[in-house]
Amino acid sequence: MKKPTHGGNLAWAAAIANCPASAILDFSASINPLGPPEEAIASIYQGISQLSQYPDPNYTQFRASIAAYHHCQPDSVLPGNGAAELLTWAAWELSQLEVTWIPNPGFADYQRALQTFSASIRPYSLNLLPEGLKTAKKAGLILNNPHNPTGKLWPVTDILPMVEKFALVLIDEAFMDFLPPSQQQSLISFVPQFDNLIILRSLTKFYSLPGLRLGYVITQPERIKRWQKWRDPWSVNILAALAGEAVIKDREFQQKTWDWLIPTRENLYQQLALLPYLKPQRGRANFLLIETAKPSSQLQLELLKKDRILIRDCLSFPLLGDRFFRIAVRTSEENQTLINALKRI
Amino acid sequence: MKKPTHGGNLAWAAAIANCPASAILDFSASINPLGPPEEAIASIYQGISQLSQYPDPNYTQFRASIAAYHHCQPDSVLPGNGAAELLTWAAWELSQLEVTWIPNPGFADYQRALQTFSASIRPYSLNLLPEGLKTAKKAGLILNNPHNPTGKLWPVTDILPMVEKFALVLIDEAFMDFLPPSQQQSLISFVPQFDNLIILRSLTKFYSLPGLRLGYVITQPERIKRWQKWRDPWSVNILAALAGEAVIKDREFQQKTWDWLIPTRENLYQQLALLPYLKPQRGRANFLLIETAKPSSQLQLELLKKDRILIRDCLSFPLLGDRFFRIAVRTSEENQTLINALKRI
Repeated sequence: MKKPTHGGNLAWAAAIANCPASAILDFSASINPLGPPEEAIASIYQGISQLSQYPDPNYTQFRASIAAYHHCQPDSVLPGNGAAELLTWAAWELSQLEVTWIPNPGFADYQRALQTFSASIRPYSLNLLPEGLKTAKKAGLILNNPHNPTGKLWPVTDILPMVEKFALVLIDEAFMDFLPPSQQQSLISFVPQFDNLIILRSLTKFYSLPGLRLGYVITQPERIKRWQKWRDPWSVNILAALAGEAVIKDREFQQKTWDWLIPTRENLYQQLALLPYLKPQRGRANFLLIETAKPSSQLQLELLKKDRILIRDCLSFPLLGDRFFRIAVRTSEENQTLINALKRI
Repeated sequence: MKKPTHGGNLAWAAAIANCPASAILDFSASINPLGPPEEAIASIYQGISQLSQYPDPNYTQFRASIAAYHHCQPDSVLPGNGAAELLTWAAWELSQLEVTWIPNPGFADYQRALQTFSASIRPYSLNLLPEGLKTAKKAGLILNNPHNPTGKLWPVTDILPMVEKFALVLIDEAFMDFLPPSQQQSLISFVPQFDNLIILRSLTKFYSLPGLRLGYVITQPERIKRWQKWRDPWSVNILAALAGEAVIKDREFQQKTWDWLIPTRENLYQQLALLPYLKPQRGRANFLLIETAKPSSQLQLELLKKDRILIRDCLSFPLLGDRFFRIAVRTSEENQTLINALKRI
């Protein structure tokens, strides 16, 4: 079986660990361990009786819920079959520009989407933001905030000058929900001011539903209408639309997640820092990037075979390679299992 | 609310009929009224506990099931988020050609997908098949067999010469499952011989799961690998993949559908033919195209307001316009309800 380039490939891990996929403790995919919320599951059960119908191609109710949550207009919102589908359409638009800058290291799917349409791609180092990035009038920019895999968060004030400079700016805020509202640095409220701004959000990481596929963009209505003509009419399945409508209103689950994440991440960081061969980096999302003196691909195999624990190696990030790995923050108990396993290595 | 250009838009219909969407008797979407099969629902329930995981990006088990059903190789199969997603990728490939021929009348989504990538589109009349279609070396062809909305079925022997003539041929066999195996005219078994042949199939019409989104293509492995690089890694949600695996093995449901469809369609045809203002056409799929002396858009509104019945007008098919409408074959009792309503008009 081919080695995966993304976290969460349990079929691959199970084959290596020689156990069922359900026996793997997965630190490789950055999914909220508290979810999915009960409300989501209840909506899915309720939706099963509607599967003989096509989804509403306008996703009217779901778009209204997203808009209410973000205090924006429903015609500025477009749900997608995961953020990944919407990235495809952003890339189709970006490919018309002379060049698109993408973060290095960065989420591999940016490259996938841009390469599909033969876009001209230029990687940038994170330390070049916000000032050092050269641009031409016809350049696009993809920015990931907070950034995967480093967990770095840029303040809105650092990003705005780039929105003014670039022809088209896609901000991937897939992990922004993991920050408490007072700490978030979302550009959503600037969408009405900038017709070159696209905000990409995911609902599957925070609400723990990656198997269902669910994301959305917020951008000006003209672009939404254009993308609706481009893509197929019913890309979001009915169960995902219903679950999305339910979770985005679930303040209790949101609060519970923030209450869990902040102390648990700090504790995990502290414990990792005590291990002599590891150097964790502080991050603002629900994962930590860790520098390792032992090659991460070897560490990954050992943890899988001995402890059925899956970590994310960083081989798909050329700048990081074998010197880094990434782990999700999970429950205190699960984190302790990982720490114990890392101690034995 | 905007008038829909596809069947099955119950949100629109419910607003006109002033009733909940669930109260609409939907003849506009050509969905099997016997489904979804119990096996599909059982798999979905079972899959809910897996939603915190990403789908297997290789869809190994699902592809193996499709391959076993069609006696082809799993690496010739690619599942999609509905046939519509796969149509997008076929269109991206077709757009590289000088021109693509599409059926007129024909499914509106062919045009959507091709226009997205600024493909050069040329509509053809059905009576030009198989001999009369002019071609250049660099031309693509989309063929729909059996054809929507006429229900016409072309024999394999009529199609093969076209596969030899055109640079790239997409056969949309979304309704082929509705024919008993002895009557099917699928090109699937010819895929190993022709590297320019793509067969598109849907699982949501026959198995009554359009809300879940599920289709697949069968084409040579090199093209599958290319499309996998183009599209996002997890376009098919876990529940759809599990349901698909279950239904494609469900011989009992398949037989039950064939046993229902053939006599029920004939009876519906006979009854429609008795109405003086209607002239139904014989079709081989699970729907009938009907010529009407009364404008179909007016008929549609009357049926909705008086009887909460939704038929498919043909305004989105420019050749047909207001002189035709399309209805799905439903259960005998539901068909009788429609006939009674049509008699009162």
